[in-house]
Amino acid sequence: MVKRTTFADAECPVARSMDAIGDGWSLLIVRDAFDGLRRFGEFQRSLGMARNILSARLRALVEHGIFELVPASDGSAYQEYLLTQKGRGLFPLIIGLRQWGEAFFFEAGEAHSRMVDREQGQPIRPLELRSQDGRLLGPEDCRRIAASERGHGGMP
Amino acid sequence: MVKRTTFADAECPVARSMDAIGDGWSLLIVRDAFDGLRRFGEFQRSLGMARNILSARLRALVEHGIFELVPASDGSAYQEYLLTQKGRGLFPLIIGLRQWGEAFFFEAGEAHSRMVDREQGQPIRPLELRSQDGRLLGPEDCRRIAASERGHGGMP
Repeated sequence: MVKRTTFADAECPVARSMDAIGDGWSLLIVRDAFDGLRRFGEFQRSLGMARNILSARLRALVEHGIFELVPASDGSAYQEYLLTQKGRGLFPLIIGLRQWGEAFFFEAGEAHSRMVDREQGQPIRPLELRSQDGRLLGPEDCRRIAASERGHGGMP
Repeated sequence: MVKRTTFADAECPVARSMDAIGDGWSLLIVRDAFDGLRRFGEFQRSLGMARNILSARLRALVEHGIFELVPASDGSAYQEYLLTQKGRGLFPLIIGLRQWGEAFFFEAGEAHSRMVDREQGQPIRPLELRSQDGRLLGPEDCRRIAASERGHGGMP
């Protein structure tokens, strides 16, 4: 894929985000990290990726500040990939991908992995978009305004 | 990028989702559709993509049921790309990307585009993950369980 360096300074936060994680592998690696995977070999076995591709993706994720490389927690010579605060910020996004997948990529009754809360073991709630005063928002209720534009009632 | 057909029948909904939208362009095209863009030329001008790449991405998005092709709303000979229900289901994900981008890819005070609710013009709230009984959840509070595994307290 052609590197789209122009998006790194786009005014749109979606574009800047995609500049960092705009390929499928990156988000699947991050998904696995949230499941507790930390080592190159663990990611490699989980994803079945070619080692050179995984190596390049992990390097890019470290460069983007999504993972940090730390010595292995068990004192061995291995290094481990830990999600940074920025990487952990991707959790709602992974959940959004999961819920969209659950809704549109499985037949009724088809088994799939699930995300539950540890305390009660129940599926987590669908992500909701709400206004500042708590109204549930759909796409039609929202409007993107340019960096230069002042929103109605927005901050001065 | 190598086509990863294996993820289309993965048990993980994140993996199936990424099989459909796992490149940066696709989500940026969907972002533009939520902003009201409908025609090939509009997407092309917005994204500055090569026409053959845009054409391939749009075709894939139609094949995946994310867009449908319809006659132009103004009666002209153009065709328009409309988000399907499945495509519209990506809205929380686009918002998740936006909010992550806002949090980690802009300097304090750096201007960026914003998403506001039409009624009051205020920024929409950060996406929140909640348990069935309303507790706010972080990554550590959640657990992915395999399709074959029964969750504690889950449905029988």
